[in-house]
Amino acid sequence: MHEKTPLASQLEVYFDKLWPICRSITGNGLRQSLEILQEIIPLTQHEVPTGKQVFDWTIPKEWNIRDAYILCPDGKKIASFADHNLHVLNYSAPIHKKISWEELQPHLHHIPEMPDAIPYMTSYYKENWGFCITHNEWKTLPKEGEYEVFIDSTLESGQLTWGECVLPGTTEEEILFSTYLCHPSMANNELSGPLAQAFLYQKLAALPNRRYTYRFLFAPETIGVIAFLSERGHHLKKELKAGYVLTCCGDPGAFTYKRSKHRTSLADRAAEHVLTYQHKQHSVIEFAVGGSDERQYCSPGFNLPVGSLMRTPYQRYPQYHTSLDDKNFISFQALAETVETYFDICRVLESNETFINQIAHCEPQLGKRGLYPSSVDPLFNREETHRLLHFLSFADGEKDLIEIAEWRRESALLYQSIIDNCKQASLI
Amino acid sequence: MHEKTPLASQLEVYFDKLWPICRSITGNGLRQSLEILQEIIPLTQHEVPTGKQVFDWTIPKEWNIRDAYILCPDGKKIASFADHNLHVLNYSAPIHKKISWEELQPHLHHIPEMPDAIPYMTSYYKENWGFCITHNEWKTLPKEGEYEVFIDSTLESGQLTWGECVLPGTTEEEILFSTYLCHPSMANNELSGPLAQAFLYQKLAALPNRRYTYRFLFAPETIGVIAFLSERGHHLKKELKAGYVLTCCGDPGAFTYKRSKHRTSLADRAAEHVLTYQHKQHSVIEFAVGGSDERQYCSPGFNLPVGSLMRTPYQRYPQYHTSLDDKNFISFQALAETVETYFDICRVLESNETFINQIAHCEPQLGKRGLYPSSVDPLFNREETHRLLHFLSFADGEKDLIEIAEWRRESALLYQSIIDNCKQASLI
Amino acid sequence: MHEKTPLASQLEVYFDKLWPICRSITGNGLRQSLEILQEIIPLTQHEVPTGKQVFDWTIPKEWNIRDAYILCPDGKKIASFADHNLHVLNYSAPIHKKISWEELQPHLHHIPEMPDAIPYMTSYYKENWGFCITHNEWKTLPKEGEYEVFIDSTLESGQLTWGECVLPGTTEEEILFSTYLCHPSMANNELSGPLAQAFLYQKLAALPNRRYTYRFLFAPETIGVIAFLSERGHHLKKELKAGYVLTCCGDPGAFTYKRSKHRTSLADRAAEHVLTYQHKQHSVIEFAVGGSDERQYCSPGFNLPVGSLMRTPYQRYPQYHTSLDDKNFISFQALAETVETYFDICRVLESNETFINQIAHCEPQLGKRGLYPSSVDPLFNREETHRLLHFLSFADGEKDLIEIAEWRRESALLYQSIIDNCKQASLI
Repeated sequence: MHEKTPLASQLEVYFDKLWPICRSITGNGLRQSLEILQEIIPLTQHEVPTGKQVFDWTIPKEWNIRDAYILCPDGKKIASFADHNLHVLNYSAPIHKKISWEELQPHLHHIPEMPDAIPYMTSYYKENWGFCITHNEWKTLPKEGEYEVFIDSTLESGQLTWGECVLPGTTEEEILFSTYLCHPSMANNELSGPLAQAFLYQKLAALPNRRYTYRFLFAPETIGVIAFLSERGHHLKKELKAGYVLTCCGDPGAFTYKRSKHRTSLADRAAEHVLTYQHKQHSVIEFAVGGSDERQYCSPGFNLPVGSLMRTPYQRYPQYHTSLDDKNFISFQALAETVETYFDICRVLESNETFINQIAHCEPQLGKRGLYPSSVDPLFNREETHRLLHFLSFADGEKDLIEIAEWRRESALLYQSIIDNCKQASLI
Repeated sequence: MHEKTPLASQLEVYFDKLWPICRSITGNGLRQSLEILQEIIPLTQHEVPTGKQVFDWTIPKEWNIRDAYILCPDGKKIASFADHNLHVLNYSAPIHKKISWEELQPHLHHIPEMPDAIPYMTSYYKENWGFCITHNEWKTLPKEGEYEVFIDSTLESGQLTWGECVLPGTTEEEILFSTYLCHPSMANNELSGPLAQAFLYQKLAALPNRRYTYRFLFAPETIGVIAFLSERGHHLKKELKAGYVLTCCGDPGAFTYKRSKHRTSLADRAAEHVLTYQHKQHSVIEFAVGGSDERQYCSPGFNLPVGSLMRTPYQRYPQYHTSLDDKNFISFQALAETVETYFDICRVLESNETFINQIAHCEPQLGKRGLYPSSVDPLFNREETHRLLHFLSFADGEKDLIEIAEWRRESALLYQSIIDNCKQASLI
Repeated sequence: MHEKTPLASQLEVYFDKLWPICRSITGNGLRQSLEILQEIIPLTQHEVPTGKQVFDWTIPKEWNIRDAYILCPDGKKIASFADHNLHVLNYSAPIHKKISWEELQPHLHHIPEMPDAIPYMTSYYKENWGFCITHNEWKTLPKEGEYEVFIDSTLESGQLTWGECVLPGTTEEEILFSTYLCHPSMANNELSGPLAQAFLYQKLAALPNRRYTYRFLFAPETIGVIAFLSERGHHLKKELKAGYVLTCCGDPGAFTYKRSKHRTSLADRAAEHVLTYQHKQHSVIEFAVGGSDERQYCSPGFNLPVGSLMRTPYQRYPQYHTSLDDKNFISFQALAETVETYFDICRVLESNETFINQIAHCEPQLGKRGLYPSSVDPLFNREETHRLLHFLSFADGEKDLIEIAEWRRESALLYQSIIDNCKQASLI
């Protein structure tokens, strides 16, 4: 057994804190979750009032819930919100009523193919109420008699909340990390995303210097990002160089990188470079609308360079959107590796400049600069010397470091000391 | 046994009418064939007089023939035009003469490798006469003695004729279908082409509306199309969006699409899209001069976007240019399928616009337009909803429908109802 | 056994003349070698004085050597320059001294993995002295006692020499052939290069006419080419259309073409065309700095279209840079074939024009020009007729002959008579 790394341990601590909270696209659960994350990353909470128009959408009412359950004809209490917050159809209107089995049935969701799973269901934009139970439980229910349904919720004017943090760099050019915070107790989709993103902040904040400004967004999926873009979209169109949606970051499967619509944007090149040349087992998929908030970022009016590095994507694992997407399904080691991989992408982005070899006509005489041990020198390192000569040969002011490194089919991160040496020798 | 479809039956009826006629690049056989086709498509006959210069060529004399045969030394009549019009070298000058075997031999064509086949031979631009017989017949002939050759033909000033029909659309932009009508009794090459093209007209004429103007040409190969281009070439350079040469449309082999020189013109994209996403067994070949009238359309002075959707191409089946390319060799079901496939290409061309999503910033809220059933709705169709969201996400005014559909690796024809719904909802 | 071709025999004669000479990057050995080559190609010797600045480099002292050896403690003479000029570290400073084994050891080079090979070692830019012996000899040496080392060399102000020849064509546009002359007795790397290049000159000089001007450079590797480029670089940037570095031309392995940085320059297209369509077994590798003088030609300030057609490249055969790279390792038949292949590349370059079909609208009527035998003509050659029609169809003033021939996946050299016929018929 591997010992857990410190990062994996911390991820688990915060997973356990965030797990029990019933989040939705608005409400106290969302605010409470942001407060917990603020222990890791200094987020500012932004609020948008119910009824506000954001592009084609309207901010819905704020939903809060205290309790919910069904009393069976025999008095047995089932589908209790106190037991699992997935038991309630998310965004359910309040109800307290005695009803027949026939009336209850269309409001009772279960999955015959997964008899042990409570499904995750929502109804944000069409007022409704409902309960979700396992198919095994459903089978035991009497299919007649009087049921009592109780949902102690409120749907009232209020706020939609998002958390945001900007980590400044030496330029205004931005890298965006975006994750969503609106699902109740589920692990890979969704807690893995906010957790990875919060700890990625810590690694970036610890860097001695940064070229890029990094923006971190924690918002409810879809409506939250639409609200965010209605305020920041114009700015991002101007400054965003690369962005990523963090979701499904914690299962132990191979990596999946979903490209932006551009397919070869800087976001795509940097992510695919790291996956390929850090030798991560991975696959690459094209942009598709079956996904998460990249749908908004890549909508035709914005078409931002935003991709998504995941592990096993939404809908490709059976536990998705059920109570089985829980702590057992994810691995904190895998989640920590996802954080490290995103951090490597940032390191590549930071170093991915174009360079101009100042001695462009023929090779520089490296020997006189102490950079080229002669072949009789026991210190001669053919690999490193070739890399240096290669770098100088391709440092033409047009090719960036990713392109230079990929010509040799190797990681751009191998070039850091070469770049430092060349700068010191005034070669670039 | 499949019952023949109505289209296949009609194709056969007209095949039988056209089969016996001895066509050539000029003459009554050509005009008579056009008259029969006029029962299906309202063709106008255009005539160009002998001696007229058309680009680098001169319209040759009009050829007509009434009878022809050889009398053997023993009085036996062979190679009778009355038996098969392939027996005469097409465009033979008149002759009536007694000659020796030695004199006859260079004028007597047969194929040792295909002993049952009468070859199809022509001599349009070098006055000559000749006969074509099976090798089996040739073997029985006495190789000495006096033969009598008789060809009752005329080569006189007259006309070259082509048939043309224009089916107007709402724009001046044109789609061209071109086929040739100059071969005597042969089935795949050539009757399959004119038959398919005539019935394709009927399907297009039946459409309630058409964006494109469709032009249909039935002309003798090479010289006929050169004459046609000398009159219409300038107009086509301006208006032609896509064109196809119809030939070898009737054998039961897989489809072969021969690209235009552009390789990715609209003609090529639409044809390859249909073959790929309607899942037709097919192969794609590049433009080559070993072919038919695309040689003229794609000549460097025109370089029009003209390809050719065939089944088994000329020269790739042994019966080609012999009496064995007959009714037995083709399948009217296959020929009907070729017509349908060309029609599908037209449907793709008609629908292949670019669209602008009017709500370009973030996704439109489809729910409020009744276009997005919530996930608790039993009517929810994930596939169709994704297709709609995909369409709107890519409707950026630059990508056309073929590109949008191919991103999802599916047929553009699946998008018709989505486009209609979006238009109705004023989303595009 | 194949009889040697005349070219192979001549190559061997000059190999034997050049073999014994101890060359270096400066000195009499270099000049003497150029004089021998002048029997094949009319070279002009250019000299650059010690101390002259050439780009980032300084011309080093001239090195000359008369004798060298080691006397062992028992008086035995080893590592004698008279036996093999590889025994001396190339560019060794003079020395005559009695030293202990411990002092000798770091100056004594041998290869434990190749016990029969004398390694080739140099120290041009850091004054040093040394000897190279086989590992087998090294093993027999007493590892104690007094050794006497003697190197009778001079390192004095003098000249760096290169040999150059310009073979004029009808245009100023240039093709460059560059090879290096600075290695002592080694066969594939290096004598194969200068030999192939000298005899390639003879074949080009024998052509009745040439479009391109051909430049041939024989210079010491790296510093010689840097000196050459400091004089000719500006001119080459203006006039060079294609260039090749000749090295490792003589082993019997398959061809390797190393591309210029452009990857699709004329140099690359012509070389890869010949290798592919003359059906030479070959592989293609990308530009890399582990190589020869293409490092200078392709440096970012020049970025000239210079590739390198080799057989087994430097460092990919174990004999490289040892005494085992000798006459036995190479094949004069293979070396002759390399010359022929370079000559074919030149023939393709010479014929690789763009052409404009003067009868661009529809096909020319070839029959009236005697260029199209009718199909009843026994002289009909379908292949050649198709090639002619293909050529005319693609002679649009944009595609060059390489592109035209590659569309048909065949050699551009098949088109010479077609081009001649078309010119005669005023078709182009």
